[in-house]
Amino acid sequence: MKKIKRERWSKEFSKWFDEVLEKAELYDYGRYPIKGMGIWRPYGFKLRKLVLELIRREHDTTGHEEVLLPLLIPEHYLRKESEHIRGFEAQVYWVTHGGVEELDVKLALRPTSETIITPMVAYWYQSYKQLPRKFYQIGSIFRYETKATRPMIRLREVTTFKEAHTFHDSFEDAERQVKEAIGIYRRIFDALGIPYVISQRPEWDKFAGALYTIAFDTIMPDGKVLQIGTVHHLGQNFTKAFEARIQQEDGTIDYMWSTSYGISDRIIATLISVHGDDRGLVLLPKIAPIQVVIIPIPSKDEEKTKKIIDYARKVRKVLEDNGIRVYVDEREEVTPGYKYYDWEMRGVPVRIEVGERELSEEKVTLVRRDLLIRTTVNFNELVEKVRELFNEIEKYLKSRAREFFNSKLRFTKTLEEAIDIINTQGGIVEVPWCGNLDCGLEIEARTGLRVLGRPIKDEEKYIKERISGHKCPVCGKPAKTILRLAKTY
Amino acid sequence: MKKIKRERWSKEFSKWFDEVLEKAELYDYGRYPIKGMGIWRPYGFKLRKLVLELIRREHDTTGHEEVLLPLLIPEHYLRKESEHIRGFEAQVYWVTHGGVEELDVKLALRPTSETIITPMVAYWYQSYKQLPRKFYQIGSIFRYETKATRPMIRLREVTTFKEAHTFHDSFEDAERQVKEAIGIYRRIFDALGIPYVISQRPEWDKFAGALYTIAFDTIMPDGKVLQIGTVHHLGQNFTKAFEARIQQEDGTIDYMWSTSYGISDRIIATLISVHGDDRGLVLLPKIAPIQVVIIPIPSKDEEKTKKIIDYARKVRKVLEDNGIRVYVDEREEVTPGYKYYDWEMRGVPVRIEVGERELSEEKVTLVRRDLLIRTTVNFNELVEKVRELFNEIEKYLKSRAREFFNSKLRFTKTLEEAIDIINTQGGIVEVPWCGNLDCGLEIEARTGLRVLGRPIKDEEKYIKERISGHKCPVCGKPAKTILRLAKTY
Repeated sequence: MKKIKRERWSKEFSKWFDEVLEKAELYDYGRYPIKGMGIWRPYGFKLRKLVLELIRREHDTTGHEEVLLPLLIPEHYLRKESEHIRGFEAQVYWVTHGGVEELDVKLALRPTSETIITPMVAYWYQSYKQLPRKFYQIGSIFRYETKATRPMIRLREVTTFKEAHTFHDSFEDAERQVKEAIGIYRRIFDALGIPYVISQRPEWDKFAGALYTIAFDTIMPDGKVLQIGTVHHLGQNFTKAFEARIQQEDGTIDYMWSTSYGISDRIIATLISVHGDDRGLVLLPKIAPIQVVIIPIPSKDEEKTKKIIDYARKVRKVLEDNGIRVYVDEREEVTPGYKYYDWEMRGVPVRIEVGERELSEEKVTLVRRDLLIRTTVNFNELVEKVRELFNEIEKYLKSRAREFFNSKLRFTKTLEEAIDIINTQGGIVEVPWCGNLDCGLEIEARTGLRVLGRPIKDEEKYIKERISGHKCPVCGKPAKTILRLAKTY
Repeated sequence: MKKIKRERWSKEFSKWFDEVLEKAELYDYGRYPIKGMGIWRPYGFKLRKLVLELIRREHDTTGHEEVLLPLLIPEHYLRKESEHIRGFEAQVYWVTHGGVEELDVKLALRPTSETIITPMVAYWYQSYKQLPRKFYQIGSIFRYETKATRPMIRLREVTTFKEAHTFHDSFEDAERQVKEAIGIYRRIFDALGIPYVISQRPEWDKFAGALYTIAFDTIMPDGKVLQIGTVHHLGQNFTKAFEARIQQEDGTIDYMWSTSYGISDRIIATLISVHGDDRGLVLLPKIAPIQVVIIPIPSKDEEKTKKIIDYARKVRKVLEDNGIRVYVDEREEVTPGYKYYDWEMRGVPVRIEVGERELSEEKVTLVRRDLLIRTTVNFNELVEKVRELFNEIEKYLKSRAREFFNSKLRFTKTLEEAIDIINTQGGIVEVPWCGNLDCGLEIEARTGLRVLGRPIKDEEKYIKERISGHKCPVCGKPAKTILRLAKTY
C-alpha cells in the first residue's frame, strides 16, 4: 500500500490549512479588507450545505424547529442578564448610526441569540403544557475577537453558527435536554468521523449566563485543541431576566428553564483538517460536493478521443441515475496529470479514468483519493464498486482520524510530565484531580496550559480506570476525577 | 359553488395581513423592540424554505453558483462607486465600535453586495475565457428605512434577500444576462401564481449605480402596487470602481461588465396576499409546509374513536409514502370545528375528515381550502384524488389572482382619468407617453402618482395596441410608448 504523506499537514498545519482553503476554492480569506471575515466560494458553499443538511436532519428528527431571528439586539436587551453581558461586553460590535442619524438605542450585532429568543418565548407560551419547545437557527453571529483571527477557526463573522434554544418546565427536563443535545452532537461528529472528548468546562470557563457548560474538543493536526461544540444548562438565568413565566401543573407560576447549544464553521474546519493529507483535501463521500470525477484520457487518434469522451459521459449517466454526484472534466487546455492534481487537492473521493484500454475492454479505472489505490472494474459492476469504495473510504478515514486522536490523548500523574508531553507532542493530557476548584486553578497556573475540564458524569468507568491510586498533584488528596489540559486555539 | 368571502381581505388589507402573519404563526412582528425587524416562526420558516428551494432551483439550473459574502462593508468600499453611495448613504446602518473600542474604519451593514463581490471577482478572474460567471446569495440585508415599516414588505432587516451578481466580457453579454434574469423571475413568479407587469424604471428611479433597471410589480389586495423584483444592467460602473479588469480575446485590457438582480421577503408577502381570503392564508400545494391535514372526527363510542384514529394514521401513511406532506391533528382538547378554523387560517390546501361513516365505508372526505368544496372518495383512490385536487387548487388560485390583477390594470388617455381610477379603484393605469424624460417627470408631478416606467422592448405589440392614435398628455406629440402609474408601497 502506497504511503500517503502527512508531513506538511502536521508540521506546517497552519500554512497547509490556508493553502487548502485557497487552492480548493473553498473559502476566500485575507483579501477582503475586514479582519476575521471571508467569502464562501461555490465549492466551499456546497460542502457547507451538505454538512448543514446533516446537522439539520439530526435536529429536525428530534423535534427541533428551525427559526430565523433578527441579527440586531437592542443594548438594554443584551444587558438584561448580568453575567451574560459581562462575558460578551468586550466582544460586541455596536451599530450606533442609521444613515447620518445617531440611533436612540445602540444595537449589538448578535454574539449569540439567548437575549432575542427568550423574550419572544415569554410571549408565546404561558403553560407547562406547551413545553418543552426546541428551536434552532443557522446564521451569522459576530464577535470582536482580539486574539489572532484564522479562517473558519477564529472569525469575527462566524457565518455558520447553528444555535439551539430550548425551554422547559423543570430543571430536570432541561438537564434531560442537555443529554439529548450531547447525543445529537455525538451523532453529528461521529457521522463526519471527527473524534472528540466531552468535558464539563471548569466554573471559570463556562458560558456567560450558564449554570454549567459541556464542551466537545478535538485535536488538530498540529496537536492544538479546538473546541467544536458546546451545550449549556442555562437554568432560569435568562428566563428570569426576560420574565418568561409559565403556569405549572399545580397552578403555581414559575420561570421556565432553558438550555442552548451551538456548533459553528469550526465543524467544517475540523472536517478539512482531520481527514486531509499533503495532497490537500480528502472528503468523506457523504458530504463531498462531487463524489466522483471522471477524467477522459485522450488518444492520439481524434476519433477515438471522441469515443472516449462519449464513454465518459455514459459512465456519468449511470452514476447520476444512481444518485451519485459526478462530474466529467472535459477541459482540453490541461493534461490528465494536471486534472489528477487538481481534483486530489479538492478532495474528490473517487476518480475514474477512462482511456483507450477502458473503452475497448468496457472497463473503468477507479482511484480512491484517501489511499490513491487503483482498481479496474467492468462497466456493468461500476455502480456497485463505487458504492463499495465510498464505504471503504469512509471507514478508513474515520479509523485514521481516530488513531491520530488516540495517539494524542494521554494520562500522566504529574504536571511536569503533562507540560513536557504537550510541549513536545501536543494533544490532550489528563491528570488526576481532587475536584476542588482552587486546585484546578492552581493546575492551570502551574502548567500554563488551558484546562478543558473534567469528563461528564456518564463516564464513571473511564474516570475510575485512570485515577485509581492517584493523587491530586496540588493538594495530594486522593483523585476524584481527572482534569484535561491542552494548548488550545 | 360556495362564494368565498374576500371583503376584509381587500377592504382592510393591512389589518388582514398582520392578522394572518400572527394567527398562522408565520412571522412575529411588532413585539421585538427594533422597528422593522421580526422573527420567522417555524411554520413561516418552512414556507420560506419551500419558496427558497424553488428560487434556488431556477438559479442552479441556469448556471448560477451560490456563495456567502460578509455582512459588513468597510466605508471606503461602499464609497467607491459614487452614484451607489449617494443612493444608499441615508439608508445605511453603521457599526462604529467593537467592544468599547472605536473602530478605525466604520463598517456598513450591507444594503446590497455589489461592493463586496466586485473586488473579489477582480482577484478571481483575469481573462474573458473565464467569463461569464454568475453568483447568487440568499441572506440578510439592512436598510434604515425612514418610511413606515411593514412586516415582510418594508423592513429594516430584509432577511430573505436573494441577490445575483454576474460578470461578463461585453455590454451585450451583460444585456443577454438581463434577459435571462427576466426569464428566471418570470418562471419563479409564474410558478407561484403571482401576476406582474415588467417595466423599465424611469431614469430618476433606477438602482443607484445602474445603467438601467427593469422591475417586476404586482398589485396587492388594497390596490397598491408592490415592487417584487428588480434586474439591473450595471455597465462597467462597479468594475471600474474596483478595477476588475480582464484580458479580451484581442489582447486588450478592459473592465468587466456586470449585472445584479434581486428578490426579497416580498415574494412571500405577495404569495400570502394574492391568494388569501377572509378565512386567512390559502397556500399553493407546491409550497405548503403541510399539504394535507387529517382531522379524525371522534365518535361517542370510545372504541370506535380509537379505530377512527388508527384509520386516520393509515391515511397519513399512504399519503406520506407518496411524498405528500401530511399531518394528523389528534388534539383532544379542541373540537373538530376549531381544528377546521385553525388549519383554514394556516392555508393547508386539503383537509381530510375521517369519522364513523368514512371508517365503515372505507372512504375519506376531502375539503379543498380554496373553494371549501367537499367530496367523498374511496380509500383506494385517495392518492390520485388528492393529487388531482392539488392541480385544481393551483389552477384556480392562479386564475383568480390573474383575474384580480387584470381587473386592476387599465389604460386611459388622460391624466385626470388616471388619477380618478387610481384614487377610486387602485391598481396600475397606463397612459400614452412620447418617451421624453421631461414629460415623464411632468406626468409624475401633475398626477402625484408614482411612475413605474414603461414596458420593456420585448413588448412592442402590447405597446402598439394601446398607443395607436394617442398623444402624450403633456406635450401633445404622438405617443411612442406607455407610462405606468400607480400608488406604491
